[in-house]
Amino acid sequence: MKPNYFAVIFSSSLKDQTDPIYHEFSKQMQDEIQHSPGFLGMESYREASGKGVTISYWESKKAIRQWKENSKHVLAQQYGKAHAYAQFELKICRVEKAYEFKAADSN
Amino acid sequence: MKPNYFAVIFSSSLKDQTDPIYHEFSKQMQDEIQHSPGFLGMESYREASGKGVTISYWESKKAIRQWKENSKHVLAQQYGKAHAYAQFELKICRVEKAYEFKAADSN
Repeated sequence: MKPNYFAVIFSSSLKDQTDPIYHEFSKQMQDEIQHSPGFLGMESYREASGKGVTISYWESKKAIRQWKENSKHVLAQQYGKAHAYAQFELKICRVEKAYEFKAADSN
Repeated sequence: MKPNYFAVIFSSSLKDQTDPIYHEFSKQMQDEIQHSPGFLGMESYREASGKGVTISYWESKKAIRQWKENSKHVLAQQYGKAHAYAQFELKICRVEKAYEFKAADSN
């Protein structure tokens, strides 16, 4: 069956990995996003260099827009652009095919 | 302008982070993929836990198929399924919107 959901790929570089305000915003957003309508899940990675990626999954483009416009998230975005990110790239993607594999000997 | 390219999100968990054969295959594939027609770039992350993600970008679905069928890559896929991965999920996505930000004070 053809999947029908969306992925947002947010690739970023932090200016300062140790910025406590960034980490507080990041923690808040990880809680807040769970309650955003149409949120399906996320995965997030960051290297010691400050480079990282967060991929979030959404039911619809409307759900992505709602999260973008969430008032707490807007504040976090403003802080991110003004202080935290050296650069980022955000891609909104339609998932057209998905395939899952699980090893027979794993749980 | 609407972007016109594709992303493959490959999220995986390794059984054994220290498997030298996996790392040899992984290194080979990182070289090999550079020469695959229609390859645009990639980003890759892995946590100490063995969880990680590789996102590759492609000009077309045909380019994704060619890489999937690359004979060296087929061997690597076989090893990965038989030995290296506890599980993985692969998503083929059409990038519908892309936005880039660069801080004024960064290079």
